[in-house]
Amino acid sequence: MQFELDRSVAVLERTPSTLRTMLSGLPREWIDATEGPETWSPYDIVGHLIHGERADWIPRARIILAQGANRRFTPFDRLAQFRESQGKSLEQLLDEFARLRAESLTTLAGFELDDARLALEGEHPAFGAVSLRQLLSTWVAHDLGHVAQIARVMAKQYRDAVGPWREYLPVMDR
Amino acid sequence: MQFELDRSVAVLERTPSTLRTMLSGLPREWIDATEGPETWSPYDIVGHLIHGERADWIPRARIILAQGANRRFTPFDRLAQFRESQGKSLEQLLDEFARLRAESLTTLAGFELDDARLALEGEHPAFGAVSLRQLLSTWVAHDLGHVAQIARVMAKQYRDAVGPWREYLPVMDR
Repeated sequence: MQFELDRSVAVLERTPSTLRTMLSGLPREWIDATEGPETWSPYDIVGHLIHGERADWIPRARIILAQGANRRFTPFDRLAQFRESQGKSLEQLLDEFARLRAESLTTLAGFELDDARLALEGEHPAFGAVSLRQLLSTWVAHDLGHVAQIARVMAKQYRDAVGPWREYLPVMDR
Repeated sequence: MQFELDRSVAVLERTPSTLRTMLSGLPREWIDATEGPETWSPYDIVGHLIHGERADWIPRARIILAQGANRRFTPFDRLAQFRESQGKSLEQLLDEFARLRAESLTTLAGFELDDARLALEGEHPAFGAVSLRQLLSTWVAHDLGHVAQIARVMAKQYRDAVGPWREYLPVMDR
């Protein structure tokens, strides 16, 4: 599938309500569940998505669109949520993510992107030249990857409880 | 995590609204996207979950709870949705799933399950003896596995569009 802006925004605008529907009011055991040491819980993932709104997608889009002399992105801190989420409830994080995502999408709409602007490039610290189109595609896929991760982390909590059905549940061993 | 009824119902009751939030009103390309031949789209998966409400979870729980002479489950038709969803819109399927799931959970509550009843067994056509507790755990994990699948199928549509970021997106190659 080719990247298309409307199609992408349709996913991006749904993610906060998807997470709220999946997680709000759930027993705490699900929210804090992980896949083992050094892996993330649903709570951690919501914090990670919040940090992305602040430090990744729109800031990087701005660097690309500015087309200044230095188009190199600031490296993204994949562990920022362990500091920034401290003391916050899941409900606070869900609210914060919804607010920031709405702001991001308002900003994105204001960019009035066309094919020429989507083809502009920035410099990724590891990959080198990347286009705005690739950045926005990654934003969409990143959301969906983390929704899949949350469901997978939760499913795995019942890996033993399902008994022999584990054989029919590939999610348990991904 | 041990199986616990309240904790399980908390997930089961959210799945219809999770799917609605993720999928309702999305451009058709996302709804019909697959991972390739013989794999399922989000549309197909909703139909599969509907068939599960009709033919799998509660009917099997009834067989177990009846403790009759023949406790062998009817094999589940994993492809029923390709027949049963024909001519239905995604919105119709989402409504149907929500209605059937609500009925299933009302029935489940009416079983007044305790540890003794949860330990009762039926006969799975492939696995042999399985407990009601294992069946209900599988219901929860099955929901979550398909939510993860829907998000993964959608993410993969942008596998090429993300360019070099694919390396950072494990969901693309699961």
